[in-house]
Amino acid sequence: MTTVALPRLAERSLLLVSSTVRDLLHLAERADVLSLAGGLPDGSTFAVERIAVAAERALATPGRYGPTALQYGPTEGLAAFREWIALGSDVHDGLGAFDSTIVTTGSQQALHLLARVLLDPGDVVVAEDPLYLGARQVLVAAGARLVGVDVDRDGLDVDALEDRLVQGVRPRLVYTVPHFQNPTGAVLSHARRERLAELAHSYGFVIIEDDPYVALSFTGERLGSLARLAPDRVVSLGSASKILAPGLRIGWLQAPDWIHRSLVLAKQSSDLHSPCFTQLVAFDALSDRGFLVEHLRALRSAYATKAAALHDALDGAFDTAMPSGGMFLWGHASRDTQAALATAIGAGVAYVPGAAFSVERDRSHDLRLSYASLALPELRDAAARLREVFS
Amino acid sequence: MTTVALPRLAERSLLLVSSTVRDLLHLAERADVLSLAGGLPDGSTFAVERIAVAAERALATPGRYGPTALQYGPTEGLAAFREWIALGSDVHDGLGAFDSTIVTTGSQQALHLLARVLLDPGDVVVAEDPLYLGARQVLVAAGARLVGVDVDRDGLDVDALEDRLVQGVRPRLVYTVPHFQNPTGAVLSHARRERLAELAHSYGFVIIEDDPYVALSFTGERLGSLARLAPDRVVSLGSASKILAPGLRIGWLQAPDWIHRSLVLAKQSSDLHSPCFTQLVAFDALSDRGFLVEHLRALRSAYATKAAALHDALDGAFDTAMPSGGMFLWGHASRDTQAALATAIGAGVAYVPGAAFSVERDRSHDLRLSYASLALPELRDAAARLREVFS
Repeated sequence: MTTVALPRLAERSLLLVSSTVRDLLHLAERADVLSLAGGLPDGSTFAVERIAVAAERALATPGRYGPTALQYGPTEGLAAFREWIALGSDVHDGLGAFDSTIVTTGSQQALHLLARVLLDPGDVVVAEDPLYLGARQVLVAAGARLVGVDVDRDGLDVDALEDRLVQGVRPRLVYTVPHFQNPTGAVLSHARRERLAELAHSYGFVIIEDDPYVALSFTGERLGSLARLAPDRVVSLGSASKILAPGLRIGWLQAPDWIHRSLVLAKQSSDLHSPCFTQLVAFDALSDRGFLVEHLRALRSAYATKAAALHDALDGAFDTAMPSGGMFLWGHASRDTQAALATAIGAGVAYVPGAAFSVERDRSHDLRLSYASLALPELRDAAARLREVFS
Repeated sequence: MTTVALPRLAERSLLLVSSTVRDLLHLAERADVLSLAGGLPDGSTFAVERIAVAAERALATPGRYGPTALQYGPTEGLAAFREWIALGSDVHDGLGAFDSTIVTTGSQQALHLLARVLLDPGDVVVAEDPLYLGARQVLVAAGARLVGVDVDRDGLDVDALEDRLVQGVRPRLVYTVPHFQNPTGAVLSHARRERLAELAHSYGFVIIEDDPYVALSFTGERLGSLARLAPDRVVSLGSASKILAPGLRIGWLQAPDWIHRSLVLAKQSSDLHSPCFTQLVAFDALSDRGFLVEHLRALRSAYATKAAALHDALDGAFDTAMPSGGMFLWGHASRDTQAALATAIGAGVAYVPGAAFSVERDRSHDLRLSYASLALPELRDAAARLREVFS
């Protein structure tokens, strides 16, 4: 019985199909399906013992009003963790300003806070095409009008963006995943970063630099944060989800002064603050350089091996390139990938059709394969099943 | 350097002064100030050892894709925890519907999700007067027009609400803290609950039942959830913050079917899900009845003793009543409490002036005293200092 009409915001939410990935995961949960569809990191890489030590230490950390892990804390996050964020580390660029940092409940919350603070319904947002689903969900829920700009091997096509700007498109935000983009695996080149920063100044937009995969570079190399090129124009997001464990829901942001205060107020009304317990756990592990360097080495090696195994076993079934980091392999098929999905699941393999990530361009023949969660023999079996479906 | 104008939502956030409690806490942080201003639970009551066991067990809980505590999880929360919520416990009424439950990042997030899903800017919300600051912040940020209805010893004055309804006020939401209200400590009587449920049906509004203090009843008694009286009209919120520890940021909601799906979508874009680690920790402790019953007995006894100590030591300095549960004592003074605050802090004692909680009515002579965090001798000293300031 519904007699109260849902208002505009709720209607907008209802229009959002719950993310395709999640619906597929339901199908792909069957034990006989090898799923390349998910975005889950490899659970066997989680540093469970180190995290257990961190949890024990967190609960033993005294505070003025009881153990810090268990008491209310500041909205911006615990001071020591924020100092680590501002300082930078083996997994992210610190921008040097303690006051510009906020610990968030995963990067997803950072996106949500930015949409709340920076967007009015109808505002234009330039997004990578194809686009990360979680970002789409936040942006659509905020009533943004999405304009898609292509991604190629060097990341967001900044020349194409400039064409749109010259044609009169006036975005408030430009959203990019600059390292090992989800879903394409592309890395935004240094030259494009410089040009993007210039455009942000010329056209007065804000760049959201969403960088959860930066630490998963197979060589360990990374490019400098966009925020170094345009400090007043870039909000830089980081996450412990792909480094330590997503179940901690710990992310962070570094924002220019003029946005920071609004973000803190939005965060305060959203959840007061992120859990002190998981903040302390993540901080303890991330700030332990001896552990982190070794953990990253193992993590990068595991993902590089998996990426190569899947890529090689596909044996040219799709037009694809070996990624240099991250969790995803993006392919182009000779037939419609959404139409083929039921057949594929019937054959015991799942993926995400490219159409799910499309903003403007036709992605009906593309697909995203995650090599992160399956073991090597499973990856080879999954590739064999895909070759059969797409032969 | 700000060249991008902040849009409407952000302006609305900026109008919100960061909560008075937080600003006062900064002053009251001085070691020589005995603060009755905070809303922190007593850190010495936290069951650190039991929580440490729960954390160890959580990290040892296997899942299909690695330890459940560390991997991504469902937006609605972990299934076993949701079953516990639907079933009810010694600390809350279960409404029997697994599908209606969501685990939230504290009750604050539940309020935020409800405001996102149910409110358009300009919508009328009836709020208790005086009102919990965190609710005010969410409602104002959502652009609600607040209408205040008085709280007396029996909670929200439902006759006064009916007068406003008859006069033509048409709220979309009515917000109430029905047990040991923050800031007054009042409990909504059974007769008023029944009338409020009838009014919700007649006038088509939704009731938010925010019940974080229900388990802190000094006698252990509680009244039934409003949702039992109007299942289609009530969203019922619970929290582990005052029972276990606020640093876990674990709350939950039970919502009618017609709202539930929108809340899940709003939650998904807000933070994907609450941390699996803290969900498992809270669930492990809360579902351990042997522990919980004994822990509650100790907690209730500690708060009851503190409430009596503060009340008695005030020795009639304010017009106040001994509360029957919760964390707060509400008083009426012979002079302006906001004007006296600087003097009080100078004398080494802090409180929250009533004006901070006011919606419509003049609260300039009221004040809120929290007896939760100080030890008994400190409470007596604080009362002595207050007597001096207000003599």
